[in-house]
Amino acid sequence: MNFASDNAAGIAPAILAALGQVNDGFALGYGNDAATRRVETMFCDLFECEVAVFMVTTGTAANSLALAHSAPPWGAVLCHSDAHIMTSECGAPEFFGGGLKLVGLPGDAGRITSSTLLAALEGPEWGGPHHVSPAVLSLTQATEAGTIYQVDDIARLAQAAHARGLKVQIDGARFANAVARLGVSPAQATWKAGVDVLAFGATKGGAMAAEAVIFFDPAQAAAMGDRRKRGGHLLSKHRFVAAQFEAFLADGLWLRLAKHANTMADRLAQGLTERGLRPVWPVEANLVFVALPAEVHKKLQAAGASYYAIQSRTVPSGALSRADDVLVRLVTSFCTQPHDIERFLAAAAG
Amino acid sequence: MNFASDNAAGIAPAILAALGQVNDGFALGYGNDAATRRVETMFCDLFECEVAVFMVTTGTAANSLALAHSAPPWGAVLCHSDAHIMTSECGAPEFFGGGLKLVGLPGDAGRITSSTLLAALEGPEWGGPHHVSPAVLSLTQATEAGTIYQVDDIARLAQAAHARGLKVQIDGARFANAVARLGVSPAQATWKAGVDVLAFGATKGGAMAAEAVIFFDPAQAAAMGDRRKRGGHLLSKHRFVAAQFEAFLADGLWLRLAKHANTMADRLAQGLTERGLRPVWPVEANLVFVALPAEVHKKLQAAGASYYAIQSRTVPSGALSRADDVLVRLVTSFCTQPHDIERFLAAAAG
Amino acid sequence: MNFASDNAAGIAPAILAALGQVNDGFALGYGNDAATRRVETMFCDLFECEVAVFMVTTGTAANSLALAHSAPPWGAVLCHSDAHIMTSECGAPEFFGGGLKLVGLPGDAGRITSSTLLAALEGPEWGGPHHVSPAVLSLTQATEAGTIYQVDDIARLAQAAHARGLKVQIDGARFANAVARLGVSPAQATWKAGVDVLAFGATKGGAMAAEAVIFFDPAQAAAMGDRRKRGGHLLSKHRFVAAQFEAFLADGLWLRLAKHANTMADRLAQGLTERGLRPVWPVEANLVFVALPAEVHKKLQAAGASYYAIQSRTVPSGALSRADDVLVRLVTSFCTQPHDIERFLAAAAG
Amino acid sequence: MNFASDNAAGIAPAILAALGQVNDGFALGYGNDAATRRVETMFCDLFECEVAVFMVTTGTAANSLALAHSAPPWGAVLCHSDAHIMTSECGAPEFFGGGLKLVGLPGDAGRITSSTLLAALEGPEWGGPHHVSPAVLSLTQATEAGTIYQVDDIARLAQAAHARGLKVQIDGARFANAVARLGVSPAQATWKAGVDVLAFGATKGGAMAAEAVIFFDPAQAAAMGDRRKRGGHLLSKHRFVAAQFEAFLADGLWLRLAKHANTMADRLAQGLTERGLRPVWPVEANLVFVALPAEVHKKLQAAGASYYAIQSRTVPSGALSRADDVLVRLVTSFCTQPHDIERFLAAAAG
Repeated sequence: MNFASDNAAGIAPAILAALGQVNDGFALGYGNDAATRRVETMFCDLFECEVAVFMVTTGTAANSLALAHSAPPWGAVLCHSDAHIMTSECGAPEFFGGGLKLVGLPGDAGRITSSTLLAALEGPEWGGPHHVSPAVLSLTQATEAGTIYQVDDIARLAQAAHARGLKVQIDGARFANAVARLGVSPAQATWKAGVDVLAFGATKGGAMAAEAVIFFDPAQAAAMGDRRKRGGHLLSKHRFVAAQFEAFLADGLWLRLAKHANTMADRLAQGLTERGLRPVWPVEANLVFVALPAEVHKKLQAAGASYYAIQSRTVPSGALSRADDVLVRLVTSFCTQPHDIERFLAAAAG
Repeated sequence: MNFASDNAAGIAPAILAALGQVNDGFALGYGNDAATRRVETMFCDLFECEVAVFMVTTGTAANSLALAHSAPPWGAVLCHSDAHIMTSECGAPEFFGGGLKLVGLPGDAGRITSSTLLAALEGPEWGGPHHVSPAVLSLTQATEAGTIYQVDDIARLAQAAHARGLKVQIDGARFANAVARLGVSPAQATWKAGVDVLAFGATKGGAMAAEAVIFFDPAQAAAMGDRRKRGGHLLSKHRFVAAQFEAFLADGLWLRLAKHANTMADRLAQGLTERGLRPVWPVEANLVFVALPAEVHKKLQAAGASYYAIQSRTVPSGALSRADDVLVRLVTSFCTQPHDIERFLAAAAG
Repeated sequence: MNFASDNAAGIAPAILAALGQVNDGFALGYGNDAATRRVETMFCDLFECEVAVFMVTTGTAANSLALAHSAPPWGAVLCHSDAHIMTSECGAPEFFGGGLKLVGLPGDAGRITSSTLLAALEGPEWGGPHHVSPAVLSLTQATEAGTIYQVDDIARLAQAAHARGLKVQIDGARFANAVARLGVSPAQATWKAGVDVLAFGATKGGAMAAEAVIFFDPAQAAAMGDRRKRGGHLLSKHRFVAAQFEAFLADGLWLRLAKHANTMADRLAQGLTERGLRPVWPVEANLVFVALPAEVHKKLQAAGASYYAIQSRTVPSGALSRADDVLVRLVTSFCTQPHDIERFLAAAAG
Repeated sequence: MNFASDNAAGIAPAILAALGQVNDGFALGYGNDAATRRVETMFCDLFECEVAVFMVTTGTAANSLALAHSAPPWGAVLCHSDAHIMTSECGAPEFFGGGLKLVGLPGDAGRITSSTLLAALEGPEWGGPHHVSPAVLSLTQATEAGTIYQVDDIARLAQAAHARGLKVQIDGARFANAVARLGVSPAQATWKAGVDVLAFGATKGGAMAAEAVIFFDPAQAAAMGDRRKRGGHLLSKHRFVAAQFEAFLADGLWLRLAKHANTMADRLAQGLTERGLRPVWPVEANLVFVALPAEVHKKLQAAGASYYAIQSRTVPSGALSRADDVLVRLVTSFCTQPHDIERFLAAAAG
């Protein structure tokens, strides 16, 4: 009954096996190996266009490197005020970006609307030499609230951003979950809707430590290899990161794993709703946020369920109606099993 | 016949197996797991003192984070002019250190002598506000030339450094090779000789991607966790880095693997010497540098031997006596086999 | 009728004269001169304690250097959301601070209350390794809204800040105006109330380009000289910055000039109020914010009055009751004359 | 008898007077004033082309901003190993450049030759992702040794630099002295010879605190205003920096002052030579380096002469032939008088 995080899960078997397979023999370091070449081709195929790919081992690195490469030090990155890059990276984007500024925008259910973006961009507080200049719109897909942006949402946001000269970046730590839910092609979910650069996450989806920065315009990636290296993010035995992606992308494994996690979240949400515990935000990925009465929380803890109680300033009014409610985040993953859900619901019911 | 680099080797079987073993079940992310705790304890035991341990996935990160944590932005890091941090990290220490300065010192066979260090520290070019201040002495152990510092060398250097207020850091990408050769305890090779912080490498020694920053005075590590995080170097599924170290350190595997690599280098050096090709520097770790006559180089290439021809400004005079000699670097590893050596020597003999 | 900014004013005659006087003969550069020594002593006397003084030529530099020296790169600087360092420095504090983060707090009339601060500090979003750590409370005195903090306000805020380990910094671009209004000693307005470091502004008050970072605990200033130098803020002919301060501080000139500016602002506020145009915030320094009916604005422009129309998201509700009102900022200075006020009021009356 | 530095001199009378003249009335801040516009035009006229001008108050800032704007963080700035930016700026270029790397090149008499540059650029140690990439060639004109580059020297160096994609920057703290000696137009001494960006110094030449970054291709200056601002180098009362330049440039004052300083240096060199004390490097600007017998040094000190004894690793062999010789640097300035020279020579003669 572990719902603490998708990074509390281990490695999907096929990905673990791939590490063993790629281990055979010698391979030049630093990405000059065959597995890396294959993964680059796979990403081009997956996105139906020429892309530039930079693999790293953490989402912090993928997002920070992508943002630093897309914004000057005097640029601003606009993102949701609850975005992970804003709240939980200890200032990594600021560090990699030479002191750039993150600007949080409000928005229900973890999503920024295009009208909010437009209003923000029309404010008086932009432009040199006195003010930072808006440089990047960063969208989290799926969001921190477990919701997703529809393709039309992204297109509208990207249009507004591009009209003001901003690049559009996606923090895709849970991109697989979003695409699995959207039911569109990865290309439709990204560059066809106006996305310039994507941090494509595999770790939460079942890899060990594998994230990729994908530039949809390879020209924008010039010197990104230097930036990655001096950030300490170019692995010497690079084939082992590549191998994770190779297995993750092969035969649509990444989407199957994500669909499973989403389905488990749906089932959990449904079970909770049936017991009167309706999630506070729509469940569109693998995250379920729910306000638990204190006694239910206590029962679940006693039963050994693992999850985090969180504080949120953006929960819809009314969601925490009971004074002693505990807002919790429940995360499913590729390895969540139906019986985990059942046990959890049973424990909640007491 | 791959002698290109120790990072062209794969993962040692025991370490690969450990990845599978630690994959069982759930574990909290970001180092809050049992495997990480065990490795921390193992390092304390290994070094016979309380140490603070920060695991990352690249040597670039380990060295850069260690240096940035030990020097202010207006500090200078003194190192050998051929040190990897100086020549081959694309400015990573400068980036992590907020623009600190690396100052290269000369030295035969990749080693700095204490008299060179003392002379450098006595120069007029130090101290604020106009000049940077010497802050760290960084030693590469084993060196880029495949030599090692004896414990007494380190002690003398550390004494000179400490007397001027510098910290002593070791770039230990091949620390295992050095310790295996020295035949002393890890404690004797480090803090007992005056080392303050060590980048302990496992990747070149047989791991997939595992390096650790070891502070011998845990108080000096305050806030290092923040620095690692904002550098993007805190892995979410941290147990998989820990597992590599656990296997590497268990039952002295790290030293056995290193001894094997060293022995292979010795055998290669001996074979070359017997054929009139004496290494240009003493072979004390797993690197052999030798000046190959052009025809020998050609034969080896034809036979499929993989290694790098290098340029060096610090080769001893006379080493490249023949005009068409090619200076090459041959690297052995935990997986180099005696028959690789034999084939190489046979191919060289033509 | 220039009310655009106090930096649109020139240099006070006594300060200009001082530049000529100090020009006599030779003086060693970089602060190794007699005038610099005298100013350091004057600051110690002024603040009734041993202080460390670092003179620079811009407020941007003074604030950014002070903040960077008081917060680590993973630290957060808490300030009012309308603070100049937040909105109008193009990210200078982030640049000097190695990518630190500014966090804006709300507050009426440009002021943060201690309850707002305490609530902010109690939130869940602080602390490594995932979150930045609150490191500095920055107060603007006088505020961007032309109000001031009372000594008790500062003491309460400082107490709350210190209890959580934060330093307290003051952006004192208009510190003279605040002290002149408070009627307390500079010591009471700063370190006796808990302030750790002050950016003491002279430029807006009548100097040419002279700001000083004052550390009330000289031990906290260690290596600040290095930081200033590498920021390019150590002047070679330093005596000319010192001379400005010497004249500014001599015989209380700084307070007389500030009192004059404050008095002019009071008179302007009173005149506007009498004409039904009550300032939107209390006038406590040399800034008057008022909502002008469009026709009044037009008349003033026609009459050649110089001032800025501004947009503010924090104006009290009701202040801009008429749909076509224009919110304007009127700034007085040491050289504003009564007849400027009278002409302005007459022009406003039409 | 002050020969300590040209920054130990005060302000030239015409420049001091200009500060008073520009003080009249109000002027918008931050460079939005008439004096600033006039100076921009003067620089365009002076250099016979459209230039982008950014005025600051220190040479540290001018050089560091220029370099940071011309090199990426993973770039290398090649300069003479004795260059001021290398030895005496406490790492300012590294700070402004996000951790870029300075690489020192050897060269007699403070000058780099094009063959040295070409050899350096042909080395193996360049290029991503592992190595920094050469980005800027920085020339000091006049050099730290008091010599100058001829126009042909610059053209050859610039050609070699441009062929490898490097920009050419000049540290022109003593640019006036060099141009005065060269007897060519400022255009010939810069962009016509291939210079891309110049730090044009006025402070050492007689201003109070005035340096300008001049981009000969204004397109390369895009966003430089933002960079200057966030470095804290945009003055609020900007007219007072502009006024210094206006007076400095008017009617060729800058060259007259420089010629005077050069002439004084020549006279000093001649007098010393006549007394058997030949300068160690050609005297081509306003610096005289000479090896003084210890007893001469003692006499001069006793007579109250002010100058610095220096240590140099690049003095020609034989220059310090007597064991107790003291190498000293003597600097003349716009305000050095013939009788200062005579008194100095007399004191030296004892």
